[in-house]
Amino acid sequence: MSIKTTRREFFKAACAGITIGALSGVSCAKPEPVTVKEGYKRLNLGMASYTFRKFSLEDTLVMTNRLGLKHIAFKNFHLELNSTEDVIKAVAEKTRNAGLDLYGCGVVYMTTEDEVHQAFNYAKTAGMRVIIGVPNHELLPLVNTKVQEYDIKLAVHNHGPGDELFPSPQSVYEKIKDLDKRIGLCIDIGHTQRLGIDPSVELEKYADRIYDIHIKDVSAASNEGSAIEGGRGVIDLPKILRTLLKINYTGVAALEYEKDESDPLPGSAETIGCFRGILSVI
Amino acid sequence: MSIKTTRREFFKAACAGITIGALSGVSCAKPEPVTVKEGYKRLNLGMASYTFRKFSLEDTLVMTNRLGLKHIAFKNFHLELNSTEDVIKAVAEKTRNAGLDLYGCGVVYMTTEDEVHQAFNYAKTAGMRVIIGVPNHELLPLVNTKVQEYDIKLAVHNHGPGDELFPSPQSVYEKIKDLDKRIGLCIDIGHTQRLGIDPSVELEKYADRIYDIHIKDVSAASNEGSAIEGGRGVIDLPKILRTLLKINYTGVAALEYEKDESDPLPGSAETIGCFRGILSVI
Repeated sequence: MSIKTTRREFFKAACAGITIGALSGVSCAKPEPVTVKEGYKRLNLGMASYTFRKFSLEDTLVMTNRLGLKHIAFKNFHLELNSTEDVIKAVAEKTRNAGLDLYGCGVVYMTTEDEVHQAFNYAKTAGMRVIIGVPNHELLPLVNTKVQEYDIKLAVHNHGPGDELFPSPQSVYEKIKDLDKRIGLCIDIGHTQRLGIDPSVELEKYADRIYDIHIKDVSAASNEGSAIEGGRGVIDLPKILRTLLKINYTGVAALEYEKDESDPLPGSAETIGCFRGILSVI
Repeated sequence: MSIKTTRREFFKAACAGITIGALSGVSCAKPEPVTVKEGYKRLNLGMASYTFRKFSLEDTLVMTNRLGLKHIAFKNFHLELNSTEDVIKAVAEKTRNAGLDLYGCGVVYMTTEDEVHQAFNYAKTAGMRVIIGVPNHELLPLVNTKVQEYDIKLAVHNHGPGDELFPSPQSVYEKIKDLDKRIGLCIDIGHTQRLGIDPSVELEKYADRIYDIHIKDVSAASNEGSAIEGGRGVIDLPKILRTLLKINYTGVAALEYEKDESDPLPGSAETIGCFRGILSVI
């Protein structure tokens, strides 16, 4: 934690009540802002490579770097789940050589026992720390043994209206709360908002079990909501980011920009810029 | 001014001193944030088309719209200064039909009397309200008669280290302060920062004569500083934006993104996103 952040925390605490402020003589003026550059280091922003689903692995690495992101989770387009061990290792090395942290994969659907085994072997071979996944409910006991065997986290992803397995963060939590602590949530703030649920409330509610987050914006808080550049939609992004700082979230908040699949870089850049701008002043 | 902005101002005033806060019983908690969408409406962000100097007029209009910007000032690449009246009118109409406000042109260098006459005729024919320009010092008396004759503003642009005519906002102000009030400044925050001068201080100092602003970021506060994505450089962008809201700036703050001339859209988008994100929480 930087000195400035410490000072910020101090001011926040001091300004929580008038009495404390009056006693200590601390003004309630906001502390000096951190610079944008400092600000965006307060959260690990990353890339969910589904954003670049129409692009090659090489293009995906270049574009992720161009956005100044350091962490990436691969969708199968960039490394097929049934790849050989050699291919997985080579791609992981290529990604590391590009300066990126290949921290996870997803969304990985697991509908059979074989797919569970495959997903964990794949993640282990690639050196990934988190599988962002959707296991069928009946496979959760097997998944529970796998996270223990491999010491790899599973973050169950919620997909909003129409998802029969895991529409909401709550639907995930109810199924995993009594399982190994390495099974948790990937809260997708867009799909959550499309359910009419405030994603910030969910982030705080399940704070201790959140292992990944898909950040984005959507055009409406309903099933009709569609992907849109960050800041142009209905999600209260400042509240999202304040919540993540409040719960001291240390995982990755990964951009999944679903719009403009044939030209996703500008919208991704606008969204990341918006998140960074907000992070510099909250 | 929106109701939320009014409320924000109230909180700011109430929280300026503990005593007022204690007396009024107003908590020093921050007011609810405006949404990002509401936030960025608090300032007229626009495009300085020099950003798209390697692209056609048509591409420039499409990219400006894609960024969600409403105001554009043309560099000569997109409408040559010696164009016929018919061409100027046709391009202006095309721009309006694309949903954009063609509010100005620049940077227009004026080194002869003919170039002064040309610039004002061009701007008038296109329906522009501001010429962002650099007249030779000896042409300022002529410019003074032209702004009166045409009722079009001239915003003199400062170009930082190495500019012998107008390096700093102060160098502009000293030459124009006693001229018609329609002659003012276009403060380029990047070139100002590269002089080692805080552009926010200059914005406040010359608030009543600022008719355009070039927004951007630079990598260093020296002659060696170069263009960089907004938020990644050294300019205190939150301070810039707080200052513009404080001085109630009603002109356009136009993005001049000088990096990546062959592919400027992603960096432009990141920069605009950063400005919008900040605007939503200050």
